[in-house]
Amino acid sequence: MKDKLLYEGKAKQVFTVADNPELLVLSYKNDATAFNGVKKAQFQGKGRYNNLISAKVFEYLHQHGINSHFKEALNETEQLVEKTTIIPLEVVIRNVAAGSIVRRIGVEEKRIFNPPVIELFYKDDDLGDPLINDQHALLLSDSTPEDLKKIKAMALQVNEQLQAFFKEINLQLVDFKLEFGRNAAGEIVLSDEVSPDTCRLWDIATGEKMDKDVFREDLGDLVTVYDNILSRLEAKQ
Amino acid sequence: MKDKLLYEGKAKQVFTVADNPELLVLSYKNDATAFNGVKKAQFQGKGRYNNLISAKVFEYLHQHGINSHFKEALNETEQLVEKTTIIPLEVVIRNVAAGSIVRRIGVEEKRIFNPPVIELFYKDDDLGDPLINDQHALLLSDSTPEDLKKIKAMALQVNEQLQAFFKEINLQLVDFKLEFGRNAAGEIVLSDEVSPDTCRLWDIATGEKMDKDVFREDLGDLVTVYDNILSRLEAKQ
Ligand SMILES: Nc1ncnc2c1ncn2[C@@H]1O[C@H](COP(=O)(O)OP(=O)(O)O)[C@@H](O)[C@H]1O
Ligand SMILES: Nc1ncnc2c1ncn2[C@@H]1O[C@H](COP(=O)(O)OP(=O)(O)O)[C@@H](O)[C@H]1O
Ligand SMILES: [Mg+2]
Ligand SMILES: [Mg+2]
Repeated sequence: MKDKLLYEGKAKQVFTVADNPELLVLSYKNDATAFNGVKKAQFQGKGRYNNLISAKVFEYLHQHGINSHFKEALNETEQLVEKTTIIPLEVVIRNVAAGSIVRRIGVEEKRIFNPPVIELFYKDDDLGDPLINDQHALLLSDSTPEDLKKIKAMALQVNEQLQAFFKEINLQLVDFKLEFGRNAAGEIVLSDEVSPDTCRLWDIATGEKMDKDVFREDLGDLVTVYDNILSRLEAKQ
Repeated sequence: MKDKLLYEGKAKQVFTVADNPELLVLSYKNDATAFNGVKKAQFQGKGRYNNLISAKVFEYLHQHGINSHFKEALNETEQLVEKTTIIPLEVVIRNVAAGSIVRRIGVEEKRIFNPPVIELFYKDDDLGDPLINDQHALLLSDSTPEDLKKIKAMALQVNEQLQAFFKEINLQLVDFKLEFGRNAAGEIVLSDEVSPDTCRLWDIATGEKMDKDVFREDLGDLVTVYDNILSRLEAKQ
């Protein structure tokens, strides 16, 4: 099925698919990176957890009416997706203040955002993925105001669905990052991954951090935490 | 007239006015600061130039229907203004790409923005005046969405007027920073200063920088440049 390596990112390899230019294979790596690539490590099994967790998330979102690139998990570390032209925006939704927003604008950690805060970052590693405003997004992303409105509305819908999804396994969805792309039909669809690498998830009972912050802040064993999330997801079905 | 020193900022002292709590005296200092106070110097006469130039700008804006805090220049370095509760936003309007936006999002220097780009920064020296989006502004500035809309509309009106104002003296208005405040009547009015410290101004004939960038980038003698702007303004009347 998979053909040529098209691109290698920090967390995934992207392969073309033989005889179908509208599909890609995403192969999840064991690498963990943080702080724009400054902190790096490898964790045996991490790629498998992110692939399987992300697949479950996209299946749930599909069942709840969210259009995405996701087709199917192919094996333990790979998934088949629709090829999209990625819109170079990282769309962050925050339900609770944590991480960079606390340092950037001085809001108190754990402050509840109601409505959730939407932030746009320009997906550009050389510039350090800077925060941008809507006007910058229009200049930089080749999107129309309607596209941006659609992207934000979709991100808020994903937030509603994901809050419910994670609550069922006793996790609070603090914040997360999404990427959107345009498929061959020109539709804007949710792309990339949704995993504990791209979400902040706090255990509802204990408050424990159960996401990449375990790596960022050296809080414990990342693989144990990701294994715990996958077990909870498997148990709920 | 002026009574007690209420506050000393990087560029101005702010005094109360005896027997009138609705007024303030702004006293322009000779200090120049850049890069959030990291680079500092004193320039004999700078306070006078900024006071007299800012007074001329506010008079022009008043004649062209912009509500502001400005009452009158009292002497060479001081002006009488309405006391406002400053909204802690630095509202930046950019007609041409220069300065931080080039480094931040990688747009090409001198690129024309049409429509102009509006940026909001949270006025907080400890945080380094970070760029924020509209939702942050609502959280941080005690403003309503209507207030923010009004502020942006006023900033764009000021831009129209200032472009014409500076064009008359052969200067291109590249970008500038505004502050707004609420007066005793609860109205949002333009406050603070509009001077070569807060605008980027390029000579239309030569392209020469005629603003605080002369200090930021060590391009020449700041006082000569500010004196040149004041002379051009005095000549046009
Ligand atoms: N459906 C898709 N079509 C095309 N590219 C995609 C799709 N989904 C994700 N990508 C891109 O795959 C790349 C590899 O992912 P990742 O390793 O996470 O990269 P990065 O280092 O940019 O975070 C990213 O640039 C991501 O935007
Ligand atoms: N009309 C006004 N009422 C109250 N404060 C004002 C008014 N106009 C300007 N200010 C404030 O005066 C202070 C002094 O100005 P400045 O020296 O430029 O300060 P800063 O170091 O914050 O740039 C600033 O905090 C500015 O917001
Ligand atoms: Mg990624
Ligand atoms: Mg100032």
